Amino acid sequence: MAYELYYWPGIQGRGEFVRLALEEAGATYVDVARDEGIDALMAGLAAEGPGRPPFAPPYLRDGDLVVGQTAAILLYLGPRLGLVGESEADRIWTHQIQLTLADAVAEAHDSHHPIASGLYYEEQWQEAARRAADFRENRIPKYLGWLERVLGSNPAGPRHLVGDRLSYADLSLFQLVEGLAYAFPQATERALAVTPKVVALHRLVAARPRIGAYLGSDRRTPFNEDGIFRRYPELDG
Amino acid sequence: MAYELYYWPGIQGRGEFVRLALEEAGATYVDVARDEGIDALMAGLAAEGPGRPPFAPPYLRDGDLVVGQTAAILLYLGPRLGLVGESEADRIWTHQIQLTLADAVAEAHDSHHPIASGLYYEEQWQEAARRAADFRENRIPKYLGWLERVLGSNPAGPRHLVGDRLSYADLSLFQLVEGLAYAFPQATERALAVTPKVVALHRLVAARPRIGAYLGSDRRTPFNEDGIFRRYPELDG
Repeated sequence: MAYELYYWPGIQGRGEFVRLALEEAGATYVDVARDEGIDALMAGLAAEGPGRPPFAPPYLRDGDLVVGQTAAILLYLGPRLGLVGESEADRIWTHQIQLTLADAVAEAHDSHHPIASGLYYEEQWQEAARRAADFRENRIPKYLGWLERVLGSNPAGPRHLVGDRLSYADLSLFQLVEGLAYAFPQATERALAVTPKVVALHRLVAARPRIGAYLGSDRRTPFNEDGIFRRYPELDG
Repeated sequence: MAYELYYWPGIQGRGEFVRLALEEAGATYVDVARDEGIDALMAGLAAEGPGRPPFAPPYLRDGDLVVGQTAAILLYLGPRLGLVGESEADRIWTHQIQLTLADAVAEAHDSHHPIASGLYYEEQWQEAARRAADFRENRIPKYLGWLERVLGSNPAGPRHLVGDRLSYADLSLFQLVEGLAYAFPQATERALAVTPKVVALHRLVAARPRIGAYLGSDRRTPFNEDGIFRRYPELDG
């Protein structure tokens, strides 16, 4: 049975981290809200009666099981898609990296929405200017610097984050770098200039045949100013 | 061998979610930085050479294995401490709830630090006033309302978040409610007035013998204005 991914249509958002894993694995999946509209997505969020309601998209349906929270979805899919190591130690380390990438993604969102996700950017642009300055000067270098260190201290070598094989965390690193480079091209270029192993892993993922095919397809929604990574030139520098 | 917990001394912070699980299980553990100073904690963060460096505290050492990220630590400890169900479905659902609680904790932090964690509150109190207003009016009710819904839709009954047994997510719900009630007493009282199942679970956890003993011990650091949950009366209302 095909996996069903439920996420807001029109943006990459957090759903994209799940899509990249499904695409790399060549898994059969339905991007429900993108392909069929958001009615089913909204129904899943509002379901009454006995069950396990997700807090927010993305969520994944696999038969009777529903899993929400991006990192939990990847924790669940990793072994099934062959995108994580076999040992418990490798799996918990891969997940730990994923949770740290998720923290970076949340901060990227808050760089343009530091006050309230329910308000427009235009209602919080002054606070965003201050928060984005800290994000680009301190947080982007800190996150990319830690990823560089993880790669450099990998006993199996610096090609991958965990061991000597591709994992879902590698795919998520690719997406984080893509998003940061879109939203903060100048600040990200500066940070990447001193994180060559991160740059190399980003290139390695982009060169994967299935990822390349996906990025060139119309299934890949372009970045835009409704998503998590937004290009507001006044926030870069 | 005893578990070793590494976390900033002097605050409950994210380490407290791990402490509550260890205490409830009666596990043998060393709270390294609290009992022995922060040198070992700093060394673990700065370690060079082959390895798997945590991004930030808390991290847990279990023999040779180091696990960072609060939710990942609980994912690892849950089966070992008997604080999660046996099935994969129960485990991934418990973890999903934990990740959502972690999101609420991060937002509680940002309610007083909306611009930069590296700046003092006094340097961002104006932005904090705006963010805290959204947090108490929209976010606290949303998170507690979702937890109420999770309890109400649990097929095994509303006493616990997952199935009919105590899990680490129940303990974390207790800690979230404690923290919110400390930081935002008025807003939290309003939210809890319409989430009676959350209130009941909070009471159930507080009445656990080992939790009660822990809360009354000097191992429980009091809330204070260096932690994640801070009482700034001007942010409540």
